[in-house]
Amino acid sequence: MGKNHKKHGNYKDKKAFTSPGTLVYVGKHVAQTTRIKLVEFNEQFYHEKLIKDLNHCKPALNDNKIVWLDIDGIHEVQVVEDIGKHYQLHALLLEDILNTEQKPKLEHFGDKHLFTILKMLQFNPELSQIESEHVALILGENYVISFQEIHKTDVFAPIFTRLNASIGKTRKGKADYLFYSFCDLIVDNYFVVLEKFGEKLEELEIKIVEKPEAGDQTLLYRFKRELMTVRKAALPLRDMFGTLIREDSPLIQASTNVYLRDVYDHILQILDTIETYREMIENIQNIYLTNISNKMNSVMKTLTVFTAIFMPLTFIAGIYGMNFDNMPELHHPYGYFYTLGFMVLITIALWIYFKWKKYV
Amino acid sequence: MGKNHKKHGNYKDKKAFTSPGTLVYVGKHVAQTTRIKLVEFNEQFYHEKLIKDLNHCKPALNDNKIVWLDIDGIHEVQVVEDIGKHYQLHALLLEDILNTEQKPKLEHFGDKHLFTILKMLQFNPELSQIESEHVALILGENYVISFQEIHKTDVFAPIFTRLNASIGKTRKGKADYLFYSFCDLIVDNYFVVLEKFGEKLEELEIKIVEKPEAGDQTLLYRFKRELMTVRKAALPLRDMFGTLIREDSPLIQASTNVYLRDVYDHILQILDTIETYREMIENIQNIYLTNISNKMNSVMKTLTVFTAIFMPLTFIAGIYGMNFDNMPELHHPYGYFYTLGFMVLITIALWIYFKWKKYV
Amino acid sequence: MGKNHKKHGNYKDKKAFTSPGTLVYVGKHVAQTTRIKLVEFNEQFYHEKLIKDLNHCKPALNDNKIVWLDIDGIHEVQVVEDIGKHYQLHALLLEDILNTEQKPKLEHFGDKHLFTILKMLQFNPELSQIESEHVALILGENYVISFQEIHKTDVFAPIFTRLNASIGKTRKGKADYLFYSFCDLIVDNYFVVLEKFGEKLEELEIKIVEKPEAGDQTLLYRFKRELMTVRKAALPLRDMFGTLIREDSPLIQASTNVYLRDVYDHILQILDTIETYREMIENIQNIYLTNISNKMNSVMKTLTVFTAIFMPLTFIAGIYGMNFDNMPELHHPYGYFYTLGFMVLITIALWIYFKWKKYV
Amino acid sequence: MGKNHKKHGNYKDKKAFTSPGTLVYVGKHVAQTTRIKLVEFNEQFYHEKLIKDLNHCKPALNDNKIVWLDIDGIHEVQVVEDIGKHYQLHALLLEDILNTEQKPKLEHFGDKHLFTILKMLQFNPELSQIESEHVALILGENYVISFQEIHKTDVFAPIFTRLNASIGKTRKGKADYLFYSFCDLIVDNYFVVLEKFGEKLEELEIKIVEKPEAGDQTLLYRFKRELMTVRKAALPLRDMFGTLIREDSPLIQASTNVYLRDVYDHILQILDTIETYREMIENIQNIYLTNISNKMNSVMKTLTVFTAIFMPLTFIAGIYGMNFDNMPELHHPYGYFYTLGFMVLITIALWIYFKWKKYV
Amino acid sequence: MGKNHKKHGNYKDKKAFTSPGTLVYVGKHVAQTTRIKLVEFNEQFYHEKLIKDLNHCKPALNDNKIVWLDIDGIHEVQVVEDIGKHYQLHALLLEDILNTEQKPKLEHFGDKHLFTILKMLQFNPELSQIESEHVALILGENYVISFQEIHKTDVFAPIFTRLNASIGKTRKGKADYLFYSFCDLIVDNYFVVLEKFGEKLEELEIKIVEKPEAGDQTLLYRFKRELMTVRKAALPLRDMFGTLIREDSPLIQASTNVYLRDVYDHILQILDTIETYREMIENIQNIYLTNISNKMNSVMKTLTVFTAIFMPLTFIAGIYGMNFDNMPELHHPYGYFYTLGFMVLITIALWIYFKWKKYV
Repeated sequence: MGKNHKKHGNYKDKKAFTSPGTLVYVGKHVAQTTRIKLVEFNEQFYHEKLIKDLNHCKPALNDNKIVWLDIDGIHEVQVVEDIGKHYQLHALLLEDILNTEQKPKLEHFGDKHLFTILKMLQFNPELSQIESEHVALILGENYVISFQEIHKTDVFAPIFTRLNASIGKTRKGKADYLFYSFCDLIVDNYFVVLEKFGEKLEELEIKIVEKPEAGDQTLLYRFKRELMTVRKAALPLRDMFGTLIREDSPLIQASTNVYLRDVYDHILQILDTIETYREMIENIQNIYLTNISNKMNSVMKTLTVFTAIFMPLTFIAGIYGMNFDNMPELHHPYGYFYTLGFMVLITIALWIYFKWKKYV
Repeated sequence: MGKNHKKHGNYKDKKAFTSPGTLVYVGKHVAQTTRIKLVEFNEQFYHEKLIKDLNHCKPALNDNKIVWLDIDGIHEVQVVEDIGKHYQLHALLLEDILNTEQKPKLEHFGDKHLFTILKMLQFNPELSQIESEHVALILGENYVISFQEIHKTDVFAPIFTRLNASIGKTRKGKADYLFYSFCDLIVDNYFVVLEKFGEKLEELEIKIVEKPEAGDQTLLYRFKRELMTVRKAALPLRDMFGTLIREDSPLIQASTNVYLRDVYDHILQILDTIETYREMIENIQNIYLTNISNKMNSVMKTLTVFTAIFMPLTFIAGIYGMNFDNMPELHHPYGYFYTLGFMVLITIALWIYFKWKKYV
Repeated sequence: MGKNHKKHGNYKDKKAFTSPGTLVYVGKHVAQTTRIKLVEFNEQFYHEKLIKDLNHCKPALNDNKIVWLDIDGIHEVQVVEDIGKHYQLHALLLEDILNTEQKPKLEHFGDKHLFTILKMLQFNPELSQIESEHVALILGENYVISFQEIHKTDVFAPIFTRLNASIGKTRKGKADYLFYSFCDLIVDNYFVVLEKFGEKLEELEIKIVEKPEAGDQTLLYRFKRELMTVRKAALPLRDMFGTLIREDSPLIQASTNVYLRDVYDHILQILDTIETYREMIENIQNIYLTNISNKMNSVMKTLTVFTAIFMPLTFIAGIYGMNFDNMPELHHPYGYFYTLGFMVLITIALWIYFKWKKYV
Repeated sequence: MGKNHKKHGNYKDKKAFTSPGTLVYVGKHVAQTTRIKLVEFNEQFYHEKLIKDLNHCKPALNDNKIVWLDIDGIHEVQVVEDIGKHYQLHALLLEDILNTEQKPKLEHFGDKHLFTILKMLQFNPELSQIESEHVALILGENYVISFQEIHKTDVFAPIFTRLNASIGKTRKGKADYLFYSFCDLIVDNYFVVLEKFGEKLEELEIKIVEKPEAGDQTLLYRFKRELMTVRKAALPLRDMFGTLIREDSPLIQASTNVYLRDVYDHILQILDTIETYREMIENIQNIYLTNISNKMNSVMKTLTVFTAIFMPLTFIAGIYGMNFDNMPELHHPYGYFYTLGFMVLITIALWIYFKWKKYV
Repeated sequence: MGKNHKKHGNYKDKKAFTSPGTLVYVGKHVAQTTRIKLVEFNEQFYHEKLIKDLNHCKPALNDNKIVWLDIDGIHEVQVVEDIGKHYQLHALLLEDILNTEQKPKLEHFGDKHLFTILKMLQFNPELSQIESEHVALILGENYVISFQEIHKTDVFAPIFTRLNASIGKTRKGKADYLFYSFCDLIVDNYFVVLEKFGEKLEELEIKIVEKPEAGDQTLLYRFKRELMTVRKAALPLRDMFGTLIREDSPLIQASTNVYLRDVYDHILQILDTIETYREMIENIQNIYLTNISNKMNSVMKTLTVFTAIFMPLTFIAGIYGMNFDNMPELHHPYGYFYTLGFMVLITIALWIYFKWKKYV
């Protein structure tokens, strides 16, 4: 959250009050240069190269090949602007690519482009934190352009591998199948992230049920926030893919639709799991609070038992510590021992009483 | 839950990042072999056999008989794949059959297949736990294919019995009536599970109202989770059967529709019952929490009464235990007895005061 | 609730896993025999008789008269089955008549029958409980068939009276008006039940605001449950009558529609009242909980005041009870009285302090 | 509420189980006679008189004038029945006019009448209570009939004044504009009531934040109830006017529609304000509860500090009050003073400790 | 809130019960005079002047230029009325312009005007308060009229600057693009306000997690209220812009629609952020309450440990302070030291016991 706000702070400085459509990168500053990778392939053919000049990819558009342009690093505004001009992308679309704060969305730009913003999630095991990466996808007639923030890991590595090794159906498919592969990859990763999250949550649950501590509430609160991050990334997908399935986009073949329906199904399942975890966290919070109350009760009982037993005894001792001239008991030879015996009796009686009241 | 996560753990290892449509079994590992049972029947005729080779069932498709193919054990991916080829089932459909994590769903594959995922629930009385079993049903023109996980009990045993004994309308019906019988069986079983659940819940309720204990909160929490399991199995059914009733599938006869409407009605009633139990659990939780507070109050009152009565008495005893040279009361012949009498008076006064304040 | 579960227990034994459409009575067992009453009437004519043989009512169907067949007692499955055959009712409809657990519903069986399940509610003043009675109504072209469980009271008595005495419009109306009269009677009765419920609730409210006791939480919980019973009976009616008003059933005349709209209005008002009571109960619960906290606070203050006043006094007494050889104060002639005076001063000071802190 | 139930009690006695359409007054009994006022006007002409006989107003219907018939007092059933016959009103409509429990509603009776039930609210500053008055409006082609309960104030006085003084557009408008004026008057009054309510609520808020007392919870509860009264009066209006705007009633001119849209806007704003107050009350309740907890904490700290400081001191005094023969310290010439000094040190140490623990 | 109610107080006095359509300014009274600024521009041309007489802007309407009329200060009713006459605006529209209490809305007045009420928000860093300013926009065929309350800052300053400097697309666009610029400016400002709000909230969060104090609850409550202010300003925008995008207004060009869709997207994101903050506040409240309970627990433990250790010790000292004649221990030469040793043992034992019970 703190990190998000830092970024937002950037938004305020960089973006607000500029003329709409002005391209400004809203995100963390990075030193690395943007890497542009061009992949051309069809069922028989596969070629992959790093490029500098966008003119290299132009002819491919007229070929019988599928072109995939992968831009890793969106902080170089110029690169995004060039691609925008090259593929005739709308200014607002480019703005959304650069705005890492933009929530997931799907937009049709006529029959020419299908534009999607998605969030790739990663579970950082060291910080027990879920990290979100901004991903933009553009589906054209026979090309897909993907944009990602520069991170340690390359989000789309498994697809490179799959295409290269010619395993799976990805090589045989059209551009829309490639597009689907990206979505499937990202959505499937949510399962993995949620699983790791769930494991941590169950550890915490067991701990809280067994021996709750004062800091656990804060921990639970952090879990709730992490879950909210996943939810914010996944919730808009439901409507996005719901819409994509229902309407007929000329860029999506009927045969791909059944695959998108599968992605949609997974999204529903992810949202279900999130809801389940949410309820779990709330339940754990309730258990935690009840535990505090139960403990308080137990502390109070201890206090009451000690007080109620020793108060009368101390009082009796006080009685016989008085200095009256005429106190016959004091002069009885066994007065002291009778008194001690009486004290033992009182103690036993009170003990039984508190036993019966379930205080001890 | 823990079990679910174990499975999910499998999902991560086995399924994520493979090419979509790759068949992988996602579920517990089992040693038994898959059992394939072929039932052919019409009103006059009934034949049932265990088969190894799928070619045996091919001709049946063209007959005037209804074919029911029951696959008990979906961990042998090869078997599922063979059936898929044999009946020309879509790859994603096969994937869903193998994914025991898949939530209930209904899908039309053109006019050829109607595909359903359902969850059979069993109440395990030893662990007081509700167990869920993954069931997949495919309705074709004159056949039904059912898939189930290998468990101790055969889910569809009552239907075998009914077909075999020729009781009920199942024998006279078409494939869609058989399909309905499966759904009816599974949904009716939810009633039974909820009933057992309800009995346990009422036992717990009575216990908590009468003598709540520290562990009850955790127990209630477990009940809530169990109920969530049932809800997750039943909730998607409402939309599934709602859709099935409204749209005209060529695989469902009009006369069967009224029966499906009956199943739909039962689903609504089940969801109602779940909601009722949910509210009950929440109410019991409130009672539990209020009980803790009430008890705390009572403990505090005991403490206050003891403290407030003995403190003044001990103080008076302390007064006459002082060693001042000049303390006239000490030398009065009945000083001691007057003091004791005064103490008794104080005790009575305080007792009345606390009686009036409803502390004792 | 307990009672419901007993019945449900019957459901499990009697109904689950039988072939669908098999008629089984699901409800409490009763010894009385079913009473069948046949009423024939039109504006000029009124005839009422108890019958044994259903053939008596057949000709009436072709007459210019309205026939009302009232079956009091649905535990004799044979009777219901006979009527089903006689009037050509669907098997599932008969099943619903016998299933006293069935929630309210409305179903069209073509243009021939309009079938309704309703719940008659009765407030049992002795047990402070709301009792629910299963009622089924079938509207045909010129007849109405009503089914009710055998109870102490005859649900439809006021309609008999009204028809007999020829007061009101019921005699002049057609079968649909008679049908409306039944619905109106049942729905109007909800007002009466809610009113009695509301009176009891207000009594409880006043009691809890004035002097809350430990058992009140459980009482409130029971009120919540009773209210849930009413809600379960009334909630489905909103959709049922909403649908009935919107769609054109050939069995309902346009002139009757305005009356059904009136019933619909009453249902909305009933649901409103239920919602109001629900909020009231929740508010009372909050008041109750706050009262507990306030009381705890007051107990704690008493304890603190007693402790804080007597502790210092006892300590001072303890000081002068020490046996040091050299304690000059002890030998001062007025040491004792000065000490007593000092104690009084301390008490006054502490009293003022706690007065200022609003502890006393 | 109590008052409402009294009325409801009337409902039970007077209304339930009568034949539908029977006219019975459901409301408080009043001694005054009903006042019927007939106003005829157009842009040039204005005439107002009290009438006894309804025949006086008949010819007006065919004139070029607008007729407004105002009935103040609906407890005289005969008057309402006469008007019903005169203007050919439906029996159920008349029933609703008499039923002061009827919630707000809008009904079209063909193209002839538009019928509305509204609730006029008044803030009673003496009892800090919101009082509701039952108002019924009937819009015909060129007349409006208004019914109100007899109260101290005449609800429609401002409209009389406005018509009489010929200010505003009311005189120039048709019957529908007059009808709109009534609705506008009633809805605008909700603002006034809510404002007074809001002022009282803010007073209470400031009080609770500054010095909460035990009775405040009950007070808040009463505020919640009052707010519920307003909500019940205002909520149905949203749908009523939403419908009125959308559909084309022949009784409403297009030019009046923009005014009704304005009323609709006001209703939305009222519902918003109610929601805001609702949240405010809930927040205040939370503050109140937290305050109780904070206070309890502070009481506990006081208790702990007193106990923890005086217990060790008293113990030390107790030590040197023992009567052992051999206690060397007792005979030290400065033993007493050293002991006192040690006690002071302990007190200071504990005081610092509790200061550090933020107890004092 | 207090401020709002002051205004509302004005509403009651000034507005209620006047004839609808009567123009009354509802807002704070101000001394400054209204400033009217006329801007005429097209791509080549830009002219800006302060005017007194509205006739100056008339010819511009027929030109090829875009006219922007900015009215700063709506308290001079006469000015608004003049503009209303000049541009033929509906009376109710003018009423809404003057009613600073009016919530955001969008209204079409035929094809001639598109009318919008928006709320400009400002974060006042001194009072940590969000201030709301009433803004009204009217879009005509080639003109835009903007109304704002007189405040320290001119809301639309950035647009003046942009137009003047000819940067951005605003100069090239038509009136609808200018209209969009206003909306974009206001909505973008919500991000800035929420950001500042978020920073303050996070500061509070860190403080409460680390060292909660008694007043924090009230602070949180104030944050909740501020957030409600933003929500009330932003929530109606969702529907407003949702509608604007879907329907075809002749005043909005197709090319501008994609920009409005962008504004709509931002609104959704703002509502998301608000929801996030709302959950955050609730979570912080829970943490706060749990902290109180935890602290109470810790206080209780301290009390219990002190009491439970010193009570037995004081009792023992009391025993040997008794004055019985025959107490053999008293005469043992090491009795005193044995007793002291025994006391140390008891203290150690209790300390270990409480250590084990996690009290210390």
